[in-house]
Amino acid sequence: MSQRRRRLRLGMVGGGQGAFIGAVHRIAARLDDRFELVAGALSSDPQRAQASAAEAGIARSYADWREMARAEAARDDGIDAVAIVTPNHLHAPVATAFLEAGIHVICDKPLAISLAQGEALARLAREKNRLFALTHTYSGYPLARHARELVERGALGEIRVVQVEYAQDWLAEPIESSGTNKQAGWRTDPALAGPAGCLGDIGTHAYQLAAFVTGMTPHALCAELHTFVPGRRIDDHVQAMLRYRNGARGMLWASQVASGAQNALRLRVYGTQAGLAFDQEEPNELWFTPLGGMAERVSRARVKSAIADHATRVPPGHPEGYLEAFAQLYKDAALQIEALNEGRAPPPESRLLTTVDDGVAGLRFIDAVLASSAADGRWQEIGAACSAGDG
Amino acid sequence: MSQRRRRLRLGMVGGGQGAFIGAVHRIAARLDDRFELVAGALSSDPQRAQASAAEAGIARSYADWREMARAEAARDDGIDAVAIVTPNHLHAPVATAFLEAGIHVICDKPLAISLAQGEALARLAREKNRLFALTHTYSGYPLARHARELVERGALGEIRVVQVEYAQDWLAEPIESSGTNKQAGWRTDPALAGPAGCLGDIGTHAYQLAAFVTGMTPHALCAELHTFVPGRRIDDHVQAMLRYRNGARGMLWASQVASGAQNALRLRVYGTQAGLAFDQEEPNELWFTPLGGMAERVSRARVKSAIADHATRVPPGHPEGYLEAFAQLYKDAALQIEALNEGRAPPPESRLLTTVDDGVAGLRFIDAVLASSAADGRWQEIGAACSAGDG
Amino acid sequence: MSQRRRRLRLGMVGGGQGAFIGAVHRIAARLDDRFELVAGALSSDPQRAQASAAEAGIARSYADWREMARAEAARDDGIDAVAIVTPNHLHAPVATAFLEAGIHVICDKPLAISLAQGEALARLAREKNRLFALTHTYSGYPLARHARELVERGALGEIRVVQVEYAQDWLAEPIESSGTNKQAGWRTDPALAGPAGCLGDIGTHAYQLAAFVTGMTPHALCAELHTFVPGRRIDDHVQAMLRYRNGARGMLWASQVASGAQNALRLRVYGTQAGLAFDQEEPNELWFTPLGGMAERVSRARVKSAIADHATRVPPGHPEGYLEAFAQLYKDAALQIEALNEGRAPPPESRLLTTVDDGVAGLRFIDAVLASSAADGRWQEIGAACSAGDG
Amino acid sequence: MSQRRRRLRLGMVGGGQGAFIGAVHRIAARLDDRFELVAGALSSDPQRAQASAAEAGIARSYADWREMARAEAARDDGIDAVAIVTPNHLHAPVATAFLEAGIHVICDKPLAISLAQGEALARLAREKNRLFALTHTYSGYPLARHARELVERGALGEIRVVQVEYAQDWLAEPIESSGTNKQAGWRTDPALAGPAGCLGDIGTHAYQLAAFVTGMTPHALCAELHTFVPGRRIDDHVQAMLRYRNGARGMLWASQVASGAQNALRLRVYGTQAGLAFDQEEPNELWFTPLGGMAERVSRARVKSAIADHATRVPPGHPEGYLEAFAQLYKDAALQIEALNEGRAPPPESRLLTTVDDGVAGLRFIDAVLASSAADGRWQEIGAACSAGDG
Repeated sequence: MSQRRRRLRLGMVGGGQGAFIGAVHRIAARLDDRFELVAGALSSDPQRAQASAAEAGIARSYADWREMARAEAARDDGIDAVAIVTPNHLHAPVATAFLEAGIHVICDKPLAISLAQGEALARLAREKNRLFALTHTYSGYPLARHARELVERGALGEIRVVQVEYAQDWLAEPIESSGTNKQAGWRTDPALAGPAGCLGDIGTHAYQLAAFVTGMTPHALCAELHTFVPGRRIDDHVQAMLRYRNGARGMLWASQVASGAQNALRLRVYGTQAGLAFDQEEPNELWFTPLGGMAERVSRARVKSAIADHATRVPPGHPEGYLEAFAQLYKDAALQIEALNEGRAPPPESRLLTTVDDGVAGLRFIDAVLASSAADGRWQEIGAACSAGDG
Repeated sequence: MSQRRRRLRLGMVGGGQGAFIGAVHRIAARLDDRFELVAGALSSDPQRAQASAAEAGIARSYADWREMARAEAARDDGIDAVAIVTPNHLHAPVATAFLEAGIHVICDKPLAISLAQGEALARLAREKNRLFALTHTYSGYPLARHARELVERGALGEIRVVQVEYAQDWLAEPIESSGTNKQAGWRTDPALAGPAGCLGDIGTHAYQLAAFVTGMTPHALCAELHTFVPGRRIDDHVQAMLRYRNGARGMLWASQVASGAQNALRLRVYGTQAGLAFDQEEPNELWFTPLGGMAERVSRARVKSAIADHATRVPPGHPEGYLEAFAQLYKDAALQIEALNEGRAPPPESRLLTTVDDGVAGLRFIDAVLASSAADGRWQEIGAACSAGDG
Repeated sequence: MSQRRRRLRLGMVGGGQGAFIGAVHRIAARLDDRFELVAGALSSDPQRAQASAAEAGIARSYADWREMARAEAARDDGIDAVAIVTPNHLHAPVATAFLEAGIHVICDKPLAISLAQGEALARLAREKNRLFALTHTYSGYPLARHARELVERGALGEIRVVQVEYAQDWLAEPIESSGTNKQAGWRTDPALAGPAGCLGDIGTHAYQLAAFVTGMTPHALCAELHTFVPGRRIDDHVQAMLRYRNGARGMLWASQVASGAQNALRLRVYGTQAGLAFDQEEPNELWFTPLGGMAERVSRARVKSAIADHATRVPPGHPEGYLEAFAQLYKDAALQIEALNEGRAPPPESRLLTTVDDGVAGLRFIDAVLASSAADGRWQEIGAACSAGDG
Repeated sequence: MSQRRRRLRLGMVGGGQGAFIGAVHRIAARLDDRFELVAGALSSDPQRAQASAAEAGIARSYADWREMARAEAARDDGIDAVAIVTPNHLHAPVATAFLEAGIHVICDKPLAISLAQGEALARLAREKNRLFALTHTYSGYPLARHARELVERGALGEIRVVQVEYAQDWLAEPIESSGTNKQAGWRTDPALAGPAGCLGDIGTHAYQLAAFVTGMTPHALCAELHTFVPGRRIDDHVQAMLRYRNGARGMLWASQVASGAQNALRLRVYGTQAGLAFDQEEPNELWFTPLGGMAERVSRARVKSAIADHATRVPPGHPEGYLEAFAQLYKDAALQIEALNEGRAPPPESRLLTTVDDGVAGLRFIDAVLASSAADGRWQEIGAACSAGDG
């Protein structure tokens, strides 16, 4: 224990000045001190790239991510992993370039802008035996992980009902038309965001969290996309009903026009013996209620569980938040990268890291919603995940 | 003001020993001191009827409700109104008998076990010019009424999203098969409850509350009924998506198998300018949040509004609950009955009382859900309410 | 069970038009249908008394409470009990007159305006063997009673810390000087309210609730009264530290100038094994947390306990409130009056009714606070309750 | 903006393996990327120091902090600042050594184990013109800072009542006697912790937060210390009443034996126009309620304020926590150190950093509590802060 591992070297593509998620990735990578950020292609505008890198204290700035992949792969002290924080349409080409160069990938979600792209990435990552982490932040919360464990060990009984929702209000008005909100601009532009707006941006988070906690994905859904804001070219609201193979039923709602909502991702799961509720805006607590019984407020850091301990830093009553959840993904990624680099199995406590397969599942969900909505809410089968050997 | 009106004379059909809602009606009728309960046919079993009436302090006990309608109509001091608290299948025949006898009706919901029955009742009530109050309790809460007023006066802007749900767990196990739970017995027996189980019992409450607050009913829905508990002959779970004429979207969920849930009726409404949330388990508060702004906890009795004042009894911080909401319906009914008896218009503050038309709307909703669910979730138009002149 | 007892006949002194607590007593007396209000001296102004009685539907109106005591005692169908809802200075003379007439007393708190008065009342009630109920409303809540039971059966271990507070804001400004607020007028007038303002009005509630739940009263206190509002003739704020014989420590705070507070009576008790918290503004829940463990939200009507069942009317998730808690005191009083009238022991479930002895304890507390505050916060012993035989 | 400043070089004294707060300081220093930790004397045991430094990735490990101060001062690339995270008794000697060496100090609280020590440190820091930051974490929360600003700009009116408390349960049992809990060991040992146990450990946090938000310190207090756990050599419970010069009143409670409590630091402030409440366990919200009005839940990152913006990293609904609050202190310290190093005034947004003067105020509070408690709760004046010129 007394010998400290070297920090892994991290590169970043995207995340220049004015971006939101790039800065979050940088804090998350730093928080548990397992990465140092040494290289970047932070913007497609070379000057902006340079200035952004200087501001972020990044030693090696590249004007082009293709060049970065080549150059870093060639260096003895090249990056171990790249964080991809571009708009969605670049996820696949950038990830492909770095995987081809033998560099591990940590990629923002959604994985890609088409299922075909996503499946290709999954195959490539397996072929190259590189880590492909997808940053579904909310599964980094210790109590989301504890919720999963409760389901897994049967504390809820057989799952019957899943209710998941993700509501925001930041796109309730046509702020993308101002031209000054970079975030709003690309997230509502199908060329950059892909065919799914709210659906891809937050609907996939809701879908992933439900799957993560319950250990089940629905086999069919019936959905309706809607665009409330006049002139918007992409959905800003999605509602869906879900069917699971075991007979469970579910509902999923995601909206970016829910006036007053901030970042209200909430999951409720009801089984034959108990129910649970988790709200990412209050991530230091989880509600567990037995059938006919009293609600228990499960507190982060009071849970006695290896899996929850692994994802917590400070004692009970010292709240942790979004950045710590995000950092958890980087911590797990570091553990897995070190193991891959050394040719050993990743440590079991890192196994909950979300991966390219979660991304593919998300893309299948997007496709099914698009199809059902286009068919006026016909029940639509959700494609099964491809087996590991299908590549 | 100094001259007190006489208390109205109330009769009751149903609500004998072992029933739940009968006792609630009796407290509600008494709470604001506008009714005295003087007659009853509390059970179809004559001995039980007699014993129940004695226990409830009711002077005139009848073995048969038909006889009661005739006899009370004939007396000078006969009842002004009858409260109907039987299982659902008797609502229509009992109400018909009392309306025919010229007696005002206060009826538990759902209104009837078929739309035809309900429409006939609506026509008859209009014909006879008698009050037909339907006890949708939750619209008796002052803050539900204030929520409605907020929408009405445009504080939310144009409504975009409606989310309503009603979750319970008391039927998560097949308790009806024990034979000892009277409630569970009739509520899961299609012969007594009608074709809708959870849908009729609590789904209609959710539907009504959403309509009450938003002032809108959806024109179409896409729904799925489900029965989770093996051997149960009726649905115990319903999920639906809603479309409104103004383009708004909605979701409705009702479940009686949601482990841990007590009586969790919750409504959220989002408009272009603000959102609101109301939870009947916390009826002394209402949440109002402007787009991009801070949530305001609106407190019962701190609201300055005639409509809310009319429905509150004690100062801020002195919680009121379910019985007070129920009593509000009786208070409004009394005001309307007195006005009808005296041939004058009912006082405006009583106008929010739910009526036979709300019941008909609920039956249309039930029919649409049954049809959509039977057609594997096809979008189904909801029949329009008949106009006042269609009788 | 099938034979109904007659309703007890109730009279009322005080509570005329414009009063708050009189109307509350009337609803509370009616709610569980064990009393009928038949006589009253509702105001010292004969016309107002008459008008108020008519409005409240009271058959026999008296201009004078002395006359009422005499006349009712003389009637065959005279009142069983009197509810005293006058300003504080009249509690003792009125109660004395009715006790002397052999009539049971239900009296608002505080018991009297001096300890001597209170002790005399306690002696008289015992001498006459009449019920003397003191309406400490908050001990009528089922979860306050359950909290008491938890302490009693040792679920908290040995009590170490008591934190109780009662905050309001309605007297934050000198509203008594307007002359139009009857409530504010007498409650801030030492001639009518006695020497203790906020201390007597709400401080005694806080003290009583803490004693009720813990089963302990402090033996000494160190206190400071304060008057914030310029021109006010009585305290509007009190803070105190408490010492208990078992070594426990406590704090008590009551304020009527706490801007934003409504009726925030909150109690927390910490023992060697667990802690609990109760907030009368959320009376349908109680928090119980073991040392180092998770908080459990104990829900009214999900508690399996005879004592809690006895004080609840509707199922879990159907909130009860202040009026139901108040009604509980009337229900318990009815049970005890019936027993006294019939010469039998009162039923055990009625034993938690607060009595004249609680009132005397409250007056001892008031005296100790006044003494300590006058002595610049010197620790002051609180007089021990007199034994039953000291009269 | 495009030119990045170099990271400041940080050293650490204390915080070796098994310590809690050292790891927290390291994350906090790293989070906003303004410091790199390059030197340390992490333990008085040389081997443990070496191993701890290696594990923490610290380049230069010293066996002795005196040696470290000398050596670092002598290096061109010596540390800019030292973080002191030892047990309390070492704060003063270590800080003195580094200040003498011209190195800025970031010190855990309480400042020292006697007022004389603390005052000497304050003088020395001024003499040497070095930063002396004291890590009162909770004043790093953006909403604690916003609360302060609300008071400052008069939104509450004149302050009348302050209620502050800090409850934990981790010392409810004599865990220090096990010998295995390092934390509990030194914190209950007067030789290492100083004469104040719970009082110094968390009572000072409560006192500081109240002062920080209200901008006022009480001039007198009346207090009682208590030790509940048998055999413990130091207080584990403190209660106090407070008087302020403007007539305001207050109460302070801190306990480490409050079964069920985690880290429950809560502040409520009531003024003539409004009240506010802040709970560090829910640091993403602040409650603001006008007199007679509705409570507003003020959300972190929805506040439009330079001071709050400066202390927030992620958008509304993305919770931040304890580590971010701690990081804020490091960020402010960095801003001030850079300014001091460059001989310019510190940027205004860094002005809320807690300093040696807050530490001295805390020691005056400790002295007053010790004196009042020893005198059986006599009201005790709290020494006024020395003026800047008294050194």
